Amino acid sequence: MTRMPSRIAVIAIDAVNPRLVAEFWCNVLGWHVVDDDDEGVISIAPPDGAWPTIDVLGVAGRKAVKNRLHLDLRADGVATPDELERLLSLGARRVDIGQGPDVSWVVLGDPEGNEFCLLSRSVQKV
Amino acid sequence: MTRMPSRIAVIAIDAVNPRLVAEFWCNVLGWHVVDDDDEGVISIAPPDGAWPTIDVLGVAGRKAVKNRLHLDLRADGVATPDELERLLSLGARRVDIGQGPDVSWVVLGDPEGNEFCLLSRSVQKV
Repeated sequence: MTRMPSRIAVIAIDAVNPRLVAEFWCNVLGWHVVDDDDEGVISIAPPDGAWPTIDVLGVAGRKAVKNRLHLDLRADGVATPDELERLLSLGARRVDIGQGPDVSWVVLGDPEGNEFCLLSRSVQKV
Repeated sequence: MTRMPSRIAVIAIDAVNPRLVAEFWCNVLGWHVVDDDDEGVISIAPPDGAWPTIDVLGVAGRKAVKNRLHLDLRADGVATPDELERLLSLGARRVDIGQGPDVSWVVLGDPEGNEFCLLSRSVQKV
């Protein structure tokens, strides 16, 4: 049998308000809630069943420092400024982590400040 | 044209030693380095070209608190204890974040302490 290494099944995000954060990421990614248990875990997944999915985990403490893991998003079907406007309308906020004015991506935060980037559609990070 | 929302292109991980962290995750996932620029970013990706990939980003500061984002791994082709042994041999360490003795997953840390979980092969989080 071919040795199958581990694969990334879930990206887990701690949240003080899991419902708010799960709803945000559903709207951003076009995903849906697939499980919402009684223990503060909300699982969201893409409609095509692809991996990894996202689990939003209820925690007591708020974010205090810049995250060491973050997600980079790409929107291939729409101009980057239009997607940026959409993300801001969903509750994303611009975040300054010292990225400077000349980068090709936009640094944003989700409703609890978890940093993520919107990459330019046609240009990789330079 | 159908509206395409953003998708997750990259999971970015900050690292004091990007090479060490990138090598660890390549070994864990069976991925390969696909880009290693002069600015401290190492990109790794699966052989099938699937998304998301991982970028390991060089940073100055070490991890100080529990991460608010983490990855859950699943190894479907091998018994969980065997995969755990493999991960530990690659440099993963067991991490106690107060998960208790009764959970069905194992909490580990990568070489810089970034928490991740090995999920049981047959049982979802309970």
